[in-house]
Amino acid sequence: MALPLLTRRGDTLFYDRERGVVQVLNRRRYPHETVFVPCHTVSDVATAITEMIVQGGPPLAYVAGYGLTLAARQQRDRPAEQQRAALAEAADLLRHTRPTADDLHHLLNAALVRANNALHAGEDGEQTLADFVDAQVARGDAVAEACGHHAADLLPDGATILTHCFAGAALNWMLFVAHVKQGKQLHLYANETRPYLQGARLTVHQAHEIGVNVTLLTDNMAGLGFCRGLFQAYVTAADRIALDGSIANKIGTYQYAVLAARHGVPFYVLGYDGPDPATPDGASIPIEERDPAEVLQCAGVRTAPPGIGAWYPAFDVTPPDLVTTIVTERGLFTPAEMARYHQETLA
Amino acid sequence: MALPLLTRRGDTLFYDRERGVVQVLNRRRYPHETVFVPCHTVSDVATAITEMIVQGGPPLAYVAGYGLTLAARQQRDRPAEQQRAALAEAADLLRHTRPTADDLHHLLNAALVRANNALHAGEDGEQTLADFVDAQVARGDAVAEACGHHAADLLPDGATILTHCFAGAALNWMLFVAHVKQGKQLHLYANETRPYLQGARLTVHQAHEIGVNVTLLTDNMAGLGFCRGLFQAYVTAADRIALDGSIANKIGTYQYAVLAARHGVPFYVLGYDGPDPATPDGASIPIEERDPAEVLQCAGVRTAPPGIGAWYPAFDVTPPDLVTTIVTERGLFTPAEMARYHQETLA
Repeated sequence: MALPLLTRRGDTLFYDRERGVVQVLNRRRYPHETVFVPCHTVSDVATAITEMIVQGGPPLAYVAGYGLTLAARQQRDRPAEQQRAALAEAADLLRHTRPTADDLHHLLNAALVRANNALHAGEDGEQTLADFVDAQVARGDAVAEACGHHAADLLPDGATILTHCFAGAALNWMLFVAHVKQGKQLHLYANETRPYLQGARLTVHQAHEIGVNVTLLTDNMAGLGFCRGLFQAYVTAADRIALDGSIANKIGTYQYAVLAARHGVPFYVLGYDGPDPATPDGASIPIEERDPAEVLQCAGVRTAPPGIGAWYPAFDVTPPDLVTTIVTERGLFTPAEMARYHQETLA
Repeated sequence: MALPLLTRRGDTLFYDRERGVVQVLNRRRYPHETVFVPCHTVSDVATAITEMIVQGGPPLAYVAGYGLTLAARQQRDRPAEQQRAALAEAADLLRHTRPTADDLHHLLNAALVRANNALHAGEDGEQTLADFVDAQVARGDAVAEACGHHAADLLPDGATILTHCFAGAALNWMLFVAHVKQGKQLHLYANETRPYLQGARLTVHQAHEIGVNVTLLTDNMAGLGFCRGLFQAYVTAADRIALDGSIANKIGTYQYAVLAARHGVPFYVLGYDGPDPATPDGASIPIEERDPAEVLQCAGVRTAPPGIGAWYPAFDVTPPDLVTTIVTERGLFTPAEMARYHQETLA
């Protein structure tokens, strides 16, 4: 049993050092097509992120990091001072592509520091950045694997799980470890996750490849499943975790969390590397609003008649009282433990 | 300001007595196309109902009634005994098209009694049935108008309302009376209502024609609206109301009712002519499950990759503790008053 494609991020996004091109799997088309979008400029990379060619907090942060690498390559023959200014500008462009997930901001800030240090030391900015982002991808893969292992231990044999959107590499690891390594029977119910249908495309495909039973739902069906006692767990990722234990994730995450709490079903959040130390609470998380035109169509076909307005908030925030366990690379935490998460790192 | 097309059912479905054809507006295509599907046989009518060419408890019941009328016409030259047997068979076929809404069953039972009496008295079965169903349509329109008037009085000026699926003629009347007659500013947020997109097609179109501000949502977005205090009311129809005040309605109705209760927003149910006297409680309401293939596609475009299963329950049940007010032709009722609703009729 091989792990499916979206498990190791390096298989879906990478920097071609020879040609100076960022290659990005088109997640808007996958799995219907497996095509890579080549990005030749920082602006190409910014567009790939805003257009959701790449999706998910860590993957889009890595692509942004490679975008900065591309900027360094294109500036390499200019004086160091001009290179630094150009990199700062490129980082700014990339930072403003999407506001909600925090990985993008942390990675770009750290990358910029390393690039400036390299330039100061007379080293090659492009190589320094490519090495740094490669290492971040490897580190992120290890985080996802550890997080998925811890999450797998939470699932009883025979568990039926509800999920929303695509919870990324940690979801693949959770299903792989629980089903293939631990031999548990699992049944995954996936919400299709309008308007981009990440659930109907990415989640069901990855779980099916792992050999897990999968049932697709539209986004209005989970309530009846809860009423019938169908689910033993509700599992999602988080685009950002606040220090008060609030989690921001794909729009809809909150409403299924409310249902899970009402029906006594635990809500497990795949929290990867934990909370954002700069976000005190849920109210501090900016909620991205995207082009409402996406709500007026589905899979490229117009659904609504002309003249109708729409609203497309891309995320919502679930308060800590609705979250049972936040699963990170270090193990299982309650939402209340998020405030101490980084203090323990320092201790 | 004219009332939009779906307000008076006779404009969307009727029996052509001259030619013996039931004409049904195709609600799967409306408002993108305004086309009528001619039904020449009972089997055509049954298919129009199961394929959701006609939707909504009362409209599909009327079409079934005209289907029985068609059967009477086609049997008219046979002996009365054979006509009675054929009508019973046709009613059986029509009765089994869809299980959840109760109107279908009441109308067919009443129609069959009238047809048998007519045949016994040597009268024309077709004409008796056509007259009966025409009267039912007129009566249903009056019910919808009265129900909509009562509901309009519940809405404050400036109200922002969440709705799910298409709540039918009473919704049109509610919006028309509140907005046009009472001059209230209203803003309607409509869930698109997958998989058939009744919200994205029928609801937004009808409300827009009445002049109400409309914003379309996908089915996973209302939670954030509730968190932001956006909605002053949540309004839906009910396909069946039980005597304990439970309501069955389009899949998803329950999950927004749970959110409304959590956020202190009243849930108003457009209850038309009240509860089904034969349904004691929510658990007694059969939930139709439809072809899961519909969940794997949207607007005719496949969304999920091959090999994936799906579940398509078409309705869910909201318990009485989540319902604020049931609005019927007679006025406003609490769910607890449903048990006495028919006793008061008899008194």
